Amino acid sequence: MTSSALAELGCQVGDAAGDVARSSSAQRDDALRAAADLFVSEADSLLAANDTDLARAGEQGMAATAIDRLRLSDARVLSMADGLRTVAGLADPVGEIVDGWVRPNGLAVSRVRVPLGVVGVIYENRPNVTSDAAGLCVKAGNAAFLRGSGSALESNKAVVAVLRRALVKAGLPAAAVTLVEDPSHETAIEFMKLRGVIDCLIPRGGPGLIASMLEHATVPYVLDGDGNCHVYVDAAADLAMAEEIVVNAKTQRPGVCNAAESLIVHRSVAAKFLPRIQRALFGVDLVGDEATRVILPDLAPASETDFGTEFLDLKLSITVVEDLSAAIGHIGRFGSGHTEAIVTGDLGAADRFVREVDAAAVVVNASTRFVDGAELGLGAEVGISTQKLHARGPMGLEALTCLKWVVRGDGQVRR
Amino acid sequence: MTSSALAELGCQVGDAAGDVARSSSAQRDDALRAAADLFVSEADSLLAANDTDLARAGEQGMAATAIDRLRLSDARVLSMADGLRTVAGLADPVGEIVDGWVRPNGLAVSRVRVPLGVVGVIYENRPNVTSDAAGLCVKAGNAAFLRGSGSALESNKAVVAVLRRALVKAGLPAAAVTLVEDPSHETAIEFMKLRGVIDCLIPRGGPGLIASMLEHATVPYVLDGDGNCHVYVDAAADLAMAEEIVVNAKTQRPGVCNAAESLIVHRSVAAKFLPRIQRALFGVDLVGDEATRVILPDLAPASETDFGTEFLDLKLSITVVEDLSAAIGHIGRFGSGHTEAIVTGDLGAADRFVREVDAAAVVVNASTRFVDGAELGLGAEVGISTQKLHARGPMGLEALTCLKWVVRGDGQVRR
Repeated sequence: MTSSALAELGCQVGDAAGDVARSSSAQRDDALRAAADLFVSEADSLLAANDTDLARAGEQGMAATAIDRLRLSDARVLSMADGLRTVAGLADPVGEIVDGWVRPNGLAVSRVRVPLGVVGVIYENRPNVTSDAAGLCVKAGNAAFLRGSGSALESNKAVVAVLRRALVKAGLPAAAVTLVEDPSHETAIEFMKLRGVIDCLIPRGGPGLIASMLEHATVPYVLDGDGNCHVYVDAAADLAMAEEIVVNAKTQRPGVCNAAESLIVHRSVAAKFLPRIQRALFGVDLVGDEATRVILPDLAPASETDFGTEFLDLKLSITVVEDLSAAIGHIGRFGSGHTEAIVTGDLGAADRFVREVDAAAVVVNASTRFVDGAELGLGAEVGISTQKLHARGPMGLEALTCLKWVVRGDGQVRR
Repeated sequence: MTSSALAELGCQVGDAAGDVARSSSAQRDDALRAAADLFVSEADSLLAANDTDLARAGEQGMAATAIDRLRLSDARVLSMADGLRTVAGLADPVGEIVDGWVRPNGLAVSRVRVPLGVVGVIYENRPNVTSDAAGLCVKAGNAAFLRGSGSALESNKAVVAVLRRALVKAGLPAAAVTLVEDPSHETAIEFMKLRGVIDCLIPRGGPGLIASMLEHATVPYVLDGDGNCHVYVDAAADLAMAEEIVVNAKTQRPGVCNAAESLIVHRSVAAKFLPRIQRALFGVDLVGDEATRVILPDLAPASETDFGTEFLDLKLSITVVEDLSAAIGHIGRFGSGHTEAIVTGDLGAADRFVREVDAAAVVVNASTRFVDGAELGLGAEVGISTQKLHARGPMGLEALTCLKWVVRGDGQVRR
């Protein structure tokens, strides 16, 4: 695809974004519900398109886990439909008057929540992301400009075709959900440079994509980063609660960003807690620092690299610290700013941890696994931002909007 | 300055940011008030340092307007001190609980406003920006990492030295306000790449700086962009009000970003309004499209370039449109997303303009000149963002903060 063809496509998406922004909530919800119905009634055509992708992936020797992500099934199609219905049922973020006041000269000032415009999403080979991302974008009054993986191209085209029919049915322009059908790397780079076309780009992918964004992107973006999350077991922790939380945070779903990767234990409870948690984490590969290995001598030593790594696996690094300050220091050094938890019965320690730990989410006496959009009550999630600007932590519909200043006067001029 | 020396300096600023974040509001306000007192009592030393810069600028043949920006005077030093006292008197944005709720499982979720951390500012040769920017950063609990122009280096060093003495007096680390003393272009580029050190970079400068940011920056940033602002005089406008607003928006201070650069007039009032505004704007260079020149034949023709240009001068482009839709379309095509105004007595037209014009600020029946932080009631301003992410429009203290999720439980784990 030439860069001028991509820019031209972008202009169409931009025009569509204007139409979506001017549409009513009801119209957008209708479009999402119509798409949900079509997904169910036309599941066969989606599965057929997916089969084409799966066959090619098989020929190319794609890894089994990747093929699993790529695969659509009746259940996954139903779940895409349910997702759209859930999003349609959420409150419309657009039009919220965030705040407002009257100036001494009589000017009435307010800030109103409005759509971003064109939201770009670059993602890997899960075809359900096509539907999820498009649904959230349209709900919040935006157009979705999607660039999925080449390995899912036929599936994504089929999903987008259904979404577009639903948009048109609801009186919205088809181009409000647009897929870049050229999966080349060059086109992805051009996509990141569509400044003036893409109002916000959300990359959903691994470190390679993030590095490419940092190097090439000129459009504004929100990064969905790593989660090197810690659980700190304080001197005043209820050790039974701590055990349950650590086990849950590490093992309930180890491959996700809000799983715990590292355990920090206060020296005064280490001798009691470490043997207990070792038993409870049977089957998890534990590595520890020197102080940990005095108590658990069979552990392999934890390197600096271990403490800095998001294992995304049944592996946990452990350190024993002198006090709360050392725990906060360790998190400051190795944390990725995603989610950090403390287990304690000491109010002062909890408050200090909450205040001083610099992360998108701080958790007191609960599992790190709760830090996602659905669990925290956002209804749906675009991703989890580990950056500080615009959106931090789980991103719901609000992250797909921005504010507009509205100033109403009756002839005021500035002196 | 080597890039490792810059990174090392950045680490010091990062450590200081932690201390500022943990400090009390009162401590930070004390620091700003102490700096204000020191500016007044030691104005002579600031002026002496400024003289060094002025002498060098004179030798190098700097333009008179640039020298004016560089110059400090007793009045400007007093105004810097007043600025710090005003900021000290504002409400502390840090600690605000933005929202919160309880989940069905009993988890108490809230979002709390916290400092960004290290705020970088790249700016030109006004030494007062050093004080203004540092004051706002510290007030919002951040450390300020400043890179000013080489031509103002001695002035900036003197201003920063005073600020640092005041910080230390209030028990805060000197490094909370740090100036990069190497004004080379290479160091500026390195500065833009201090990812993991600078939490938010605010470039205050012209198109060259913006282009350099887009090319090189890997740190998160907020752009302070151009203002190609329009006033649209609707069919239902009170023409006396329209005249006053257009004259104010264009001429009250033509060199700033919220001045009007273009006038859009509804066809039905053009024959009456255009001759009137031409008389009222005597001395302003007017250029018009064909329909305008039918009524004002002595005008030079306005090119596409004219309509796309932020003149920052006593020059105004004029177009006559068929209707409100055409006015909104013209703004969509040529506006820079800063401030757009309508003059009308028609509620429907006002509401539609507010809803459909995509800009940081939309103004009804008032001058575009009100769109700045002080006039809208923010108390102070870091800049005016024309981007949509994080901060849009005038940026006050809130733009120097971000949110943190706080999740409190009593042992919840995820099933």
